Amino acid sequence: MKQESHITIHPLAQFAATLQWDDIPPAVQRKAEDLWVDWFGSVLAGQNARPVQSLTRFALSQGPAQGPCEVIGQDTTTSPMMAALANAAAAHVAEQDDVHNGSVFHPAAVVFAPAVAVAQSMGATGAQLMAACVAGYEVGIRVGEFLGRSHYRIFHTTGTAGTLAAAAAVGHLLGLSPVQMQHALGSAGTQAAGLWEFLRTAADSKQLHTAHAAAAGLMAAYLAKDGFTGAQDIFTGPQGLAAGMSTDANPGKLTDGLGTRWATAETSFKWHASCRHTHPAADALLQVMQHNKLRPEDIAQVTCHVHQGAIDVLGPVVSPSSVHQSKFSMGTVLALAAQFGFAGLTQFDAHFQSPATVALREKVHMVLDAEVDAAYPQCWIGKVTVQTTDGRHLQGRVDEPKGDPGNTLSRDEITAKALRLAVYGNPNYATNAPQAVEQLWQVAQWKRVGRLMA
Amino acid sequence: MKQESHITIHPLAQFAATLQWDDIPPAVQRKAEDLWVDWFGSVLAGQNARPVQSLTRFALSQGPAQGPCEVIGQDTTTSPMMAALANAAAAHVAEQDDVHNGSVFHPAAVVFAPAVAVAQSMGATGAQLMAACVAGYEVGIRVGEFLGRSHYRIFHTTGTAGTLAAAAAVGHLLGLSPVQMQHALGSAGTQAAGLWEFLRTAADSKQLHTAHAAAAGLMAAYLAKDGFTGAQDIFTGPQGLAAGMSTDANPGKLTDGLGTRWATAETSFKWHASCRHTHPAADALLQVMQHNKLRPEDIAQVTCHVHQGAIDVLGPVVSPSSVHQSKFSMGTVLALAAQFGFAGLTQFDAHFQSPATVALREKVHMVLDAEVDAAYPQCWIGKVTVQTTDGRHLQGRVDEPKGDPGNTLSRDEITAKALRLAVYGNPNYATNAPQAVEQLWQVAQWKRVGRLMA
Repeated sequence: MKQESHITIHPLAQFAATLQWDDIPPAVQRKAEDLWVDWFGSVLAGQNARPVQSLTRFALSQGPAQGPCEVIGQDTTTSPMMAALANAAAAHVAEQDDVHNGSVFHPAAVVFAPAVAVAQSMGATGAQLMAACVAGYEVGIRVGEFLGRSHYRIFHTTGTAGTLAAAAAVGHLLGLSPVQMQHALGSAGTQAAGLWEFLRTAADSKQLHTAHAAAAGLMAAYLAKDGFTGAQDIFTGPQGLAAGMSTDANPGKLTDGLGTRWATAETSFKWHASCRHTHPAADALLQVMQHNKLRPEDIAQVTCHVHQGAIDVLGPVVSPSSVHQSKFSMGTVLALAAQFGFAGLTQFDAHFQSPATVALREKVHMVLDAEVDAAYPQCWIGKVTVQTTDGRHLQGRVDEPKGDPGNTLSRDEITAKALRLAVYGNPNYATNAPQAVEQLWQVAQWKRVGRLMA
Repeated sequence: MKQESHITIHPLAQFAATLQWDDIPPAVQRKAEDLWVDWFGSVLAGQNARPVQSLTRFALSQGPAQGPCEVIGQDTTTSPMMAALANAAAAHVAEQDDVHNGSVFHPAAVVFAPAVAVAQSMGATGAQLMAACVAGYEVGIRVGEFLGRSHYRIFHTTGTAGTLAAAAAVGHLLGLSPVQMQHALGSAGTQAAGLWEFLRTAADSKQLHTAHAAAAGLMAAYLAKDGFTGAQDIFTGPQGLAAGMSTDANPGKLTDGLGTRWATAETSFKWHASCRHTHPAADALLQVMQHNKLRPEDIAQVTCHVHQGAIDVLGPVVSPSSVHQSKFSMGTVLALAAQFGFAGLTQFDAHFQSPATVALREKVHMVLDAEVDAAYPQCWIGKVTVQTTDGRHLQGRVDEPKGDPGNTLSRDEITAKALRLAVYGNPNYATNAPQAVEQLWQVAQWKRVGRLMA
């Protein structure tokens, strides 16, 4: 074995431990604030989902009855690990939380929840919180890119890379040294888990994956602060993450543009309330319908020209049996978009199994497209061919689905989306969510991170 | 996707949910009691190890200050998850806990800790506790055998299969239905983690792996009791455990002899305080030395004829820098056995880096042996060739290292080992450990599982 007299620090650990808020370009700071507000809406929207309530009940049963940390949407408080577990479970279920294209990773769900819990427990400033979250984004996204497409075929990258993202964010707040941060990443990586198999029967595991990533990553950071050591090279070591969970890992991705390329700013917002793999085709279909003034009943068939990842994740879902599963059905998403111009939470709840939706759903199919597949995951191109009932074949194409950096949401759209999600989660939030969201926009000025929802 | 109107129950979930103590043959019940007492000694021996203390401090900081569950060796109590986390961390560090050869899995560390915590929290009887633990052993061992040698090359099976073993034991105590047990196994399997990479720098991850497995498996079982669902086929599904973490998975192993073949009874005790991969060669060397009345100074060279797994795990450790790492050094273990007739905890602490040990260590090397490798992991054959300073070449061979079912420990030896480990952990236990161990032997008669250590 390597007998280092001193430990070689991985640049990613060095970066995560030493990043300062003031080192982050203003545009990236603003984007981080956008992602922060967008995350909050997803947490409020998801808190009453059955799987989230199960995880929250479990967290509250295992943690102290009172603690320094907010369980968002509950009156009670608990310990950092248990609050992180509950809040991370809530953020991902509505399928409205953010996504980074190149890593196919959903950073918000696994980064903000543990960071907020720890920031509340130590009275960190808003700038400290946000710097830690940017560290979590930059680490998690690069780990996801590193693990590659072969990993994503089997593993839910948000659960696996998410464990390291959570450790980086929490470790930054705890003030880990670069050596300690490397140990934290090692301890996080050796707990990285999350398999896609649950999709096949619409099981609840997706919420468990974000909850587990947040809690396990938080634990890794606290342990490192206490002197607990982890693998020195959890990434590329012969028995590390790449060796065990990827066949196309690219070590260069781990340090790609560290400190100059801000992966945080590449993160996309989700407009439709569905799996991101459905968004490019949905936007392309909407384009065709708008340009050609098509009504849903004019559609005879829709062919979605997609990347392999879309077929891997959406392919198994041919007849969704739940609202959540229908968000992984390309046919359902396009059917809702065609009928309502938008596949939002309320559209899914009210219409995911309606006869009109099912009829349209059956007219949609996916085919692998070489150009789209080659561009993925850096670009998520939407290409559809619509055959109309009067025999026309119409082509639709969008190079950046709505919410991508080149087609992003305005702060007004982000606020509106967050409030829409809040009210979806609890109608009573119509009264107090607007004030909470207004406060969230000021996070960088907070002297001390307190409760997010009064 | 499969649209089952009803869920197909995997026989392993059916078995784990319905096993009754009275269905278990008396010989297997007695063996389970042997393993239970043997586990307790390992927990007491490990509780003061630095990595264990870190994990215990973390658990106590995140759980309630008081709870229904004992943190063994501490005056304080906490919640089931946090007690399971701390107690599971302690059981594996002394490298004296049990092992099942065919699965290369250490069941005690990940099964007894979560089961005791949950049994204490619900006031279960001793028979309920032990039936649950046998369910955990039978499930975890079969999952380890299923995942196979390709899995073990990269993953610490005790961490991965251990998550499912913990879920089975806790789920049995919680009275999960077969369907709920299947969901628990799905939620456990999607959290299964643990990479060997930490060995390369002697990091602390091994204790994190058992703690994580116990806590994550416990969570999976509680969630299933609350209606939380998991993948239906986490084992062989196209995005399940085998697809992601094995290249030689054997589904037949999952149900091999369920209810008739008792894998629990195949479990081996560890005599030497080192990685099990070192035991066959150590016993073979002791045989050669005893038969030929060799002294350590008569040894010029020792060639260990081993299986590939030994080379994978022990090969990287050429110059151990810590007591724990030295337990993964074939040379160190054989050097201690040669000097003291036994490689125990006190021998490691006092002599792992002594000049005499290092000199002997350098005379030991491993070579892959076709017969030994073919017999592994069902049989762990020990074969050594000893070259003496006077030029003789002496062969040693043991087909079952001490502690294996065919060469097992008597109850007196188990009690003596447990008390030796207890005093190693804390000299004060010399006074109260004997009574505690005497009580443990009566577990099957307990009306209610209370504190194990007064």
